Amino acid sequence: MTEFSLPVRVYIEDTDAGGIVYYVNYLKFIERARTEYMRSLGLPREEIFNGEVMFVVANVAVDYRAPARFDDELQATARLTEMRGASLRLAQAVRREEEELVSASVQLACVDPVSLTPRRIPRDMLAKLRAARNPSGA
Amino acid sequence: MTEFSLPVRVYIEDTDAGGIVYYVNYLKFIERARTEYMRSLGLPREEIFNGEVMFVVANVAVDYRAPARFDDELQATARLTEMRGASLRLAQAVRREEEELVSASVQLACVDPVSLTPRRIPRDMLAKLRAARNPSGA
Amino acid sequence: MTEFSLPVRVYIEDTDAGGIVYYVNYLKFIERARTEYMRSLGLPREEIFNGEVMFVVANVAVDYRAPARFDDELQATARLTEMRGASLRLAQAVRREEEELVSASVQLACVDPVSLTPRRIPRDMLAKLRAARNPSGA
Amino acid sequence: MTEFSLPVRVYIEDTDAGGIVYYVNYLKFIERARTEYMRSLGLPREEIFNGEVMFVVANVAVDYRAPARFDDELQATARLTEMRGASLRLAQAVRREEEELVSASVQLACVDPVSLTPRRIPRDMLAKLRAARNPSGA
Repeated sequence: MTEFSLPVRVYIEDTDAGGIVYYVNYLKFIERARTEYMRSLGLPREEIFNGEVMFVVANVAVDYRAPARFDDELQATARLTEMRGASLRLAQAVRREEEELVSASVQLACVDPVSLTPRRIPRDMLAKLRAARNPSGA
Repeated sequence: MTEFSLPVRVYIEDTDAGGIVYYVNYLKFIERARTEYMRSLGLPREEIFNGEVMFVVANVAVDYRAPARFDDELQATARLTEMRGASLRLAQAVRREEEELVSASVQLACVDPVSLTPRRIPRDMLAKLRAARNPSGA
Repeated sequence: MTEFSLPVRVYIEDTDAGGIVYYVNYLKFIERARTEYMRSLGLPREEIFNGEVMFVVANVAVDYRAPARFDDELQATARLTEMRGASLRLAQAVRREEEELVSASVQLACVDPVSLTPRRIPRDMLAKLRAARNPSGA
Repeated sequence: MTEFSLPVRVYIEDTDAGGIVYYVNYLKFIERARTEYMRSLGLPREEIFNGEVMFVVANVAVDYRAPARFDDELQATARLTEMRGASLRLAQAVRREEEELVSASVQLACVDPVSLTPRRIPRDMLAKLRAARNPSGA
């Protein structure tokens, strides 16, 4: 499946007293990529945030390999790797040119936006996600 | 009027690559103090957040005199300086022992929580705020 | 003087439980604009951050007029309005199309990067800033 | 080994437009607990941040079970579960009374503070960590 990539510039707000990007903030970078990725699949705000269902992060595992610094130009990526009835899994990364600084596996749970209890992913969303997974229609 | 003071420890999340507290984050420190101050006046969450009115920041002016660093133990303060029909003004500061690092003047507007349009401060809130302003009842 | 403008997309990280952009985070948006503005003037990282001098925020005054929401496409702007020997003042704003949501006046002090004591702005920087202020060379 | 616990109050800065704590911010809560935990073991700032070595997060895995909300009083916990020559592993959690909202496994790598390359944990630090692990001296 195609990988989605979003350019991210490192600003002062992203750094910490170690002189590098505060490790927590890479999760913001990959969430930005995830949001734009979903938008690119035809699943914009109205459907993923204010709609009949909402996606929330159920778990995340992150590996930190090398630090980014102030002013770096990075790429935050997202790629759908697993679809279940009520959850999705994405492989994500933060890269500086060819170097992978951070990689992450993120599981999103589909929930009711009010009760936050699990919900099945609506059929039309699944169709869009499947089309993204098999862009050739194969 | 008595000044309210909240201890604040500086963690890595608060710093930037300059090795000092990121200047934006002092606004978080003084908001924590404001929230606890309102709670101490008998205006907890239910009344200031989910209730019939909500307070939002209308304007803020901040002076930065000296930087705080990782691990510093600070005091964030709040003191009510002005009450109008639909707004409040507070003088706030961040101190390290006797040194004033940051001072701020914050105006809060009372608004409808849904429409965000101005609303008069409810009478019972005003009474609590006045009592705080004149603790002797004078 | 020409105004510099940077597109800013609102992500979940920028919002708060009020459903709108957390008021503190507009200061991050305008700092991003300031950083890119300085870069556009030929004053990139090396000169403004790791160099012989550093600019720090001395004071800031912010007016909040209307809230931004998740997914909004905003413009964060910066315009140099005052140059002194050891400080700069900028007028900044956050807009959504024609609507000005937030405006700010920011004073930057030129300091020694280690001692954080005031320093005169180096001549070559002043020249670049003056050229920016009078693009025609008039 | 004894678990360390730090009280954390949820402020507006911690929430997002979903009305709950922004999932990224739990990592800030557990880092605060980790910092205080290290301090309680006799490993304060000077030794873990500005000293001969520095600890950085090498990887983290987080499970989100239930959301925290504005004004909640939480406990962020830390417990050392593994010590190697150049790394530590901690089990961490965020709880609201008896309910575990979030759990995390965090691996810290010991690195040179300048080069960020791996370093062995100094003997005196190891001794303090071992003493913490076996408080009875057994």
